[in-house]
Amino acid sequence: MKIAIPIFDRFTALDAVGPYEVLSRLPGATVHFLAAEPGPKRTETGMLALTADLALDELTDPDVVVVPGGFGTRELMHDEQLLGWLRRAHATSAWTTSVCTGSLLLAAAGLLDGLEATTHWLVLEMLAEYGARPVSRRVVEHPEARIITAAGVSAGIDMALGLAARIAGAAYAQAIQLGIEYDPEPPFDGGSLAKAPPEIVALVRGSAGTLA
Amino acid sequence: MKIAIPIFDRFTALDAVGPYEVLSRLPGATVHFLAAEPGPKRTETGMLALTADLALDELTDPDVVVVPGGFGTRELMHDEQLLGWLRRAHATSAWTTSVCTGSLLLAAAGLLDGLEATTHWLVLEMLAEYGARPVSRRVVEHPEARIITAAGVSAGIDMALGLAARIAGAAYAQAIQLGIEYDPEPPFDGGSLAKAPPEIVALVRGSAGTLA
Repeated sequence: MKIAIPIFDRFTALDAVGPYEVLSRLPGATVHFLAAEPGPKRTETGMLALTADLALDELTDPDVVVVPGGFGTRELMHDEQLLGWLRRAHATSAWTTSVCTGSLLLAAAGLLDGLEATTHWLVLEMLAEYGARPVSRRVVEHPEARIITAAGVSAGIDMALGLAARIAGAAYAQAIQLGIEYDPEPPFDGGSLAKAPPEIVALVRGSAGTLA
Repeated sequence: MKIAIPIFDRFTALDAVGPYEVLSRLPGATVHFLAAEPGPKRTETGMLALTADLALDELTDPDVVVVPGGFGTRELMHDEQLLGWLRRAHATSAWTTSVCTGSLLLAAAGLLDGLEATTHWLVLEMLAEYGARPVSRRVVEHPEARIITAAGVSAGIDMALGLAARIAGAAYAQAIQLGIEYDPEPPFDGGSLAKAPPEIVALVRGSAGTLA
């Protein structure tokens, strides 16, 4: 099973690494990080680089695609090289998925036309501009379209565990969850727009992207 | 504020990237990935490389240290270069922390002597061999010793959010939690040893390290 995670400059590391940590544990799975040009790709903070080992052209038939988000998505919304790769990959993939603003790229590629989809809460309405139907949910699954979108950053872990259950069965997915000891104890009960106090939402909105 | 994350071959990516994603959002913070030899360091699956931008010698006075785990920790348990760096860094750091089996390295450096500490559930008892007092908790904080240890892999996110609250206050930490949309919805309620059914625990124990 070939799992492709395309990365790019100014991506969000946890968007990619959460699903990697889950899906790399699937039996027979190999996760490939790839990019238009192979080599190190820096996150939006510039403080961390992950290596893309393959060029997009070197892997065009993945079984699973996971598209991470980040500010770098914005300059790729008309990038035919990446969008064309996504369309071709989705034509034969078993599952095409996204985390955070990665869904904007799926939408720009035309893969979310008419479908309910999610993304980071700060840009949820942008999905509608690209033909999707934005919904405020953590994970939105479309088995018939073979598409799954996840909300912001950390939601990729939940998405990938659900996908692992679809691919390898519930027992195996549960073993992966225990393997990564995912029994969350977040210190605050305000990790979503619906739950956060208004002053905390305002703090994030006013941070010019340094908090979200 | 200088935050140091030492990495090494065969580390676990999410151990490092979870805290990075949280702590890089602290005001004035710079996260540095470093290693004995700078350059790409591969995770234990070999499928992903993160870049260490600095040599250990280039940053000896971090304000915060986060030590990730992974199978690569085992061959570092007597590595004086890393253990000595940890001791020197802890002498002046505000907080010295670990995720997963990163606590084995803190223990090997002598930093957990007599302290309660946690690690991945599969190797919890190993901590006692190095002078710590193993406890089965997700995050163990010792403000007086400036030491925090977290349980396996995903626990680093919870640890880092708690640390962010100590450093920048609860409102700011809550804003970071909302920024990374950390409102977990794990598909199973079995992400810890205490909650998982025995057959799932057996599956992980029998996986020869491919699941944990």
